[in-house]
Amino acid sequence: MTIRLADLGTAVLETEYAVRGPIVARAAELERQGREIVYCNIGNPQSLGQKALSWNRQILALCEYPALAELAPDAFPADVVAAAQAILAGTRYGLGAYSESRGVRFIREAVAEFIRERDGIDADPDAIFLTDGASKGVQTILRLLIGGPADGIMVPIPQYPLYSATITLYEGRMVPYYLDEAEGWKLSRPLLEAAFAQAEAEGTRVKAICVINPGNPTGAVLDEANIAMIVDFAKAHGLSILADEVYQENVYLPGDAFTSFAKVLHQRGAKDVSLFSFHSCSKGFLGECGVRGGYFECRNVPDDVMAQILKLQSVSLCANLAGQAATYAMVRPPKSGTPSHPQYAAEKAAILDALRQRATLLAEGLNRIDGIRCNVIAGAMYAFPSVELPAGRTDSEYAMALLEATGICVVPGSGFGQAEGTAHFRTTILPPTEKIRKVVDALAEFHRNYR
Amino acid sequence: MTIRLADLGTAVLETEYAVRGPIVARAAELERQGREIVYCNIGNPQSLGQKALSWNRQILALCEYPALAELAPDAFPADVVAAAQAILAGTRYGLGAYSESRGVRFIREAVAEFIRERDGIDADPDAIFLTDGASKGVQTILRLLIGGPADGIMVPIPQYPLYSATITLYEGRMVPYYLDEAEGWKLSRPLLEAAFAQAEAEGTRVKAICVINPGNPTGAVLDEANIAMIVDFAKAHGLSILADEVYQENVYLPGDAFTSFAKVLHQRGAKDVSLFSFHSCSKGFLGECGVRGGYFECRNVPDDVMAQILKLQSVSLCANLAGQAATYAMVRPPKSGTPSHPQYAAEKAAILDALRQRATLLAEGLNRIDGIRCNVIAGAMYAFPSVELPAGRTDSEYAMALLEATGICVVPGSGFGQAEGTAHFRTTILPPTEKIRKVVDALAEFHRNYR
Repeated sequence: MTIRLADLGTAVLETEYAVRGPIVARAAELERQGREIVYCNIGNPQSLGQKALSWNRQILALCEYPALAELAPDAFPADVVAAAQAILAGTRYGLGAYSESRGVRFIREAVAEFIRERDGIDADPDAIFLTDGASKGVQTILRLLIGGPADGIMVPIPQYPLYSATITLYEGRMVPYYLDEAEGWKLSRPLLEAAFAQAEAEGTRVKAICVINPGNPTGAVLDEANIAMIVDFAKAHGLSILADEVYQENVYLPGDAFTSFAKVLHQRGAKDVSLFSFHSCSKGFLGECGVRGGYFECRNVPDDVMAQILKLQSVSLCANLAGQAATYAMVRPPKSGTPSHPQYAAEKAAILDALRQRATLLAEGLNRIDGIRCNVIAGAMYAFPSVELPAGRTDSEYAMALLEATGICVVPGSGFGQAEGTAHFRTTILPPTEKIRKVVDALAEFHRNYR
Repeated sequence: MTIRLADLGTAVLETEYAVRGPIVARAAELERQGREIVYCNIGNPQSLGQKALSWNRQILALCEYPALAELAPDAFPADVVAAAQAILAGTRYGLGAYSESRGVRFIREAVAEFIRERDGIDADPDAIFLTDGASKGVQTILRLLIGGPADGIMVPIPQYPLYSATITLYEGRMVPYYLDEAEGWKLSRPLLEAAFAQAEAEGTRVKAICVINPGNPTGAVLDEANIAMIVDFAKAHGLSILADEVYQENVYLPGDAFTSFAKVLHQRGAKDVSLFSFHSCSKGFLGECGVRGGYFECRNVPDDVMAQILKLQSVSLCANLAGQAATYAMVRPPKSGTPSHPQYAAEKAAILDALRQRATLLAEGLNRIDGIRCNVIAGAMYAFPSVELPAGRTDSEYAMALLEATGICVVPGSGFGQAEGTAHFRTTILPPTEKIRKVVDALAEFHRNYR
């Protein structure tokens, strides 16, 4: 007798991941039939035309095949050659050997230096773990934190479904806290306290709070005061913080800036709050999703717990070395005055300018549609507008109908969570500017007809 | 209050992974103090001097930075350029975009073709999942199979500790079955039945049997009859099979050949036994551990269960694309008559010849030491000799003392499991031939003194 669905455990069966769910499967089916599909369901910039940065790819090519420095000396600027040689020396054996479980120490030192320069605070290379993208890091930390079925993790609603899926898979409890859509998706202490109190009343042992900043899917950017409030809340209740900061380069509004949890934690002298911060090569202006590079940094985590994290990482040996090299390229961009700098700066600016423009275009376009309301997209790569639906219709039905009618693939709000009685969808801002205009027009027409 | 060790769950705390345990940590410490360490603890060929195949790295470099085909046309043979262009076309967006969760379909088709050619049987690209090395695939399937705390997985003793660690982490039960050291580590039906019966008597719901062929750490190669016996056993008890076949290219004895579980399953018409087979870019003659490439193939798995596997893979998005490209390079080597073939064939033969020679050297050398007994190393990359210890000493103490005295880093047998009252260690056969001789001499001297 083969394996049967009935043999599987509830943890696996109940896990849901809407970003790649049935609507995406249907989109792939339509595409095979020859339909043009605009994949707005996932933050996958290079699939929508964004180019990889030359700096990154030149370094990766040289690291893969070091003989190129001599075979094709004119193909690589001197600073690229130097960076690749530094990485190769740091790995000791190149990209083909397992590294330490934490990742190549030389690259972790570069990450620590990046954090020091970004935040003006100290950083410890041995508290940094290089990972196959941020998702794998989040899964490690959730595995660490969920010790039993009563353990709860506070997760924003709406959230990125990596969190809900992983908590289900590890058989913990998701403790939802609501972001305030009317206030630009801000977090508020009363809403956090209410969520915490309700969880405690239900017998949940709340272990940690996850925060996504800039917000996915909300597009909100937290200011220092908001982050300080969260740190104080975590401190008051003995919670660890998971700070998902993969969109830290995606901040679009003039006057806004990314502030890290690490910096605020330091400023408040909160030595008694454990923090896990995540970063990735997949977002920002790099958009290197396929590389699966990233890291997490631990703060205020005692040595015996750090040893457990190291052990968990050891079981799957190490993050892929090309991803580790890409992480080095991310945290050590060419400096002004070096041969690669002009091209790097131009490529970076073009990508960020286009994203900024598309964020505005998309939000304004959505708000022109009667029955759709979208907050300002201050950061990250998504819009999460609310939609008015005819009575009895769900946002999943809406998203599926949108796909069938227009070829636009979005994710229903229910995949991220939303306030009772509301409906949303998530779409990326990533399609080329001309396509964004067409997406907005097609959406407007579809929405009129659907109502 | 920060996170504390006492807050963690037993699943995390009880997980053990000896291949990167305390002895390896001590080795790294000694190395920082200036000692020369020979890392025989892990199958990491390129850290011990093995070179990457030019074919692989030329393809990867071109895939990372496609402009090189024009910038450095003389650096790449025509078949490398063609392979890289085929991969890039297959991915549609290059290495920087997420692929489908299963992996790039074009590459899965190449894997299916590889299986067809290897085994003379059909293979379905949609039953193949590309993974970040085989370890991640094994973890996915164990996550799928372990549905509750009474679910058991049969694992050989000695075993590769990925299995024990992952079963502990997912809170299932390990059901050990013993390999017969006196019979060259063969599996026997009576030993399998005894292990199964005992597990059932203890209330364990046995779900699957894991087999590692060629064996890690044993070095045994299973013949067709032995595999057929396991298939019949699995069929008799309704078990799924996990076939860890990452060492399929590492078969050293004249007359021996690798036989896949897929082929035997097909020959026996066993349509009612579910099979998950694992392969990797990390072993064989490629030794591309850092690339984290590999795949698993599912056979006789119903569609609704396949959908669950796809969902699990979706949560962490996809395997790294360079690893996927390396998997293509592995399953589509240059054919005779193409420009890259002579160099490829020469590099492959040199590596396999050296491994064959070292396997013999090491086993014979170990057997010359009074108090150490080693089976023939027929395959894979390890020796797992038994050692006679002074009364009251453990093999962990022995391995630590060996490290302190000689700088040779091996893993104690207890990390893999062993028959009650025996002691072993695992060492790789990977150090360069001259070093293997020195390792054997140093071991002999150490062992004399230790007794």
